[in-house]
Amino acid sequence: MKKEILALLKRNPGEYVSGEDVSHQLSVSRTAIWKHIQALREEGYQIESQSRLGYRLQEVPDKLYPEEVQDGLSTNIIGQSIIYYERLGSTNDLAKVLAAQGVIEGTVVVAEEQSSGRGRRGRAWASPGGHGVWMSVLLRPKLSPANAPKITIMAAVAVVRAIERVCGLKVGIKWPNDIVYKGKKLAGILTEMSAEIDSINHIVLGIGTNVNVPLEAFPEEIQEKGTSLLIATGQQVSRVAYLRALLEELEVAYVQFCTEQFDTILDGWRKHSVTLGEDVRVEGIGEVLFGTAADIDSQGALLLRQKDGEMVKVLAGDVTLRKEDGSYC
Amino acid sequence: MKKEILALLKRNPGEYVSGEDVSHQLSVSRTAIWKHIQALREEGYQIESQSRLGYRLQEVPDKLYPEEVQDGLSTNIIGQSIIYYERLGSTNDLAKVLAAQGVIEGTVVVAEEQSSGRGRRGRAWASPGGHGVWMSVLLRPKLSPANAPKITIMAAVAVVRAIERVCGLKVGIKWPNDIVYKGKKLAGILTEMSAEIDSINHIVLGIGTNVNVPLEAFPEEIQEKGTSLLIATGQQVSRVAYLRALLEELEVAYVQFCTEQFDTILDGWRKHSVTLGEDVRVEGIGEVLFGTAADIDSQGALLLRQKDGEMVKVLAGDVTLRKEDGSYC
Repeated sequence: MKKEILALLKRNPGEYVSGEDVSHQLSVSRTAIWKHIQALREEGYQIESQSRLGYRLQEVPDKLYPEEVQDGLSTNIIGQSIIYYERLGSTNDLAKVLAAQGVIEGTVVVAEEQSSGRGRRGRAWASPGGHGVWMSVLLRPKLSPANAPKITIMAAVAVVRAIERVCGLKVGIKWPNDIVYKGKKLAGILTEMSAEIDSINHIVLGIGTNVNVPLEAFPEEIQEKGTSLLIATGQQVSRVAYLRALLEELEVAYVQFCTEQFDTILDGWRKHSVTLGEDVRVEGIGEVLFGTAADIDSQGALLLRQKDGEMVKVLAGDVTLRKEDGSYC
Repeated sequence: MKKEILALLKRNPGEYVSGEDVSHQLSVSRTAIWKHIQALREEGYQIESQSRLGYRLQEVPDKLYPEEVQDGLSTNIIGQSIIYYERLGSTNDLAKVLAAQGVIEGTVVVAEEQSSGRGRRGRAWASPGGHGVWMSVLLRPKLSPANAPKITIMAAVAVVRAIERVCGLKVGIKWPNDIVYKGKKLAGILTEMSAEIDSINHIVLGIGTNVNVPLEAFPEEIQEKGTSLLIATGQQVSRVAYLRALLEELEVAYVQFCTEQFDTILDGWRKHSVTLGEDVRVEGIGEVLFGTAADIDSQGALLLRQKDGEMVKVLAGDVTLRKEDGSYC
């Protein structure tokens, strides 16, 4: 009912809606309305009330509440169920537990703050409260583990498109899982899977985007390497609008993915790649490779052309680009 | 304390141990001893008590209690922690939850009965109560998802060795995950992983062995295809002894695995394989392949030599052997 009252106020922007109208339209008592209004206020909604005039919505809080994100959301799969937390250890960890419990595909976990946000290989991902969009989505694609890199590729394309849509910023993709702007990290992707030998049970796709993170909110060691949409554009970006756009772009890409249009995704990826064509150093597990990042193959793996001409396929790793002076950064 | 009292009775097989001795040796009151004896009796231990003589252990129940399995267990990793249930949905499912909660490597989940035991690709695995050994073990090897088939290979070798050790039966391995006797299924392996793109977080290795399952306890549709140690040998086999042997053989193989002696495991596997050298039909995901099962490669995948001579690598699938009349079974 709280949701319905909020929706009714939203349908009348800047206008007062009388208690009688609310009561009549939603078949709810005046006392109940008042209680729901109080609850909304506690969540941060600024609602003015005037005797005889009624209630007027003045301001929506800067929170990633499911009802805000889902308001106008055009997806059929991704984000139809959104689990929201003010603070969470890691959205990926909760999503994995929910996945094991059988929640529907497309379920999204989002938190204002992560106390132990993670990147690849257990590395810390700074997730300060109220500034970013830290979310995970559960997918159940029919896929073999060897093809899991495709999901990261797909997600990267969706992030780039969402950012461009919401704030007009053209950003780059650094293989395998970083979204960058002027060489600095803007967003990261963490793809995790539960799988049998030859088939994936489910994927938890974590995406952390530094939306309104001010420079000083980054841990000191990241201030050099990280950036945010706020820093890049000089403007606050609506986190709700960004998350909504991200879910929509993810759905577009995921539908392409599931209907065997991965080539379309790959084309989008190549267009935004800052890695392809560069001389790179790739640090994988227990090995360091050097070469030219030639292309991404049909499984989403990086094809690295080594000095001797040999092509090596790499699933994931830490990439640094070769600078003119021969060093890597 | 219950465990200590049981151990004390076991150290004196066939003998009476006086309440005074128990009380003295374990610093526990006579009343407390009596309560623990009652608890043990409820678990199925037959303990005789005679005034003036004391307590005598007459029979140990046919249960996979951790204290029974761990009694004399020579491992350092596998089975140091054993979680026991009379009845469980699936030991793999519980092990996955425990893994996510961070339990130690080598933790074993065992159940007398599984209500929804699973094989590969979500297929049912009959797990009637009290007759089999349905267990899962948690492993945290440093491994890429592409190398996960090696874990199934390793487990198959351990199962074969445990069976031979406990009841002298020589059994075969049917790639990828079945242990067979005279063409009928004796045990199955289900390897599941939680992983990032290029590294495994953990593996849950499920092994179901039809130990004392009488033919009539199998679902009708499995009676043709399944067998058990009881059916094969005509004798009841101690499930506790088998599980203990299995944990020990798993540890031997896992230590070999972790110390880069996979070749040794592979040699053992090849020796017991009923698949290698055969003309087979392999039904993978969305494809059916025909050819000769030539070998297993260093990642644990099957190398299939097709009619045109081309070698194909298969991670998992359903194998049927070609019979003389050209049909597959």
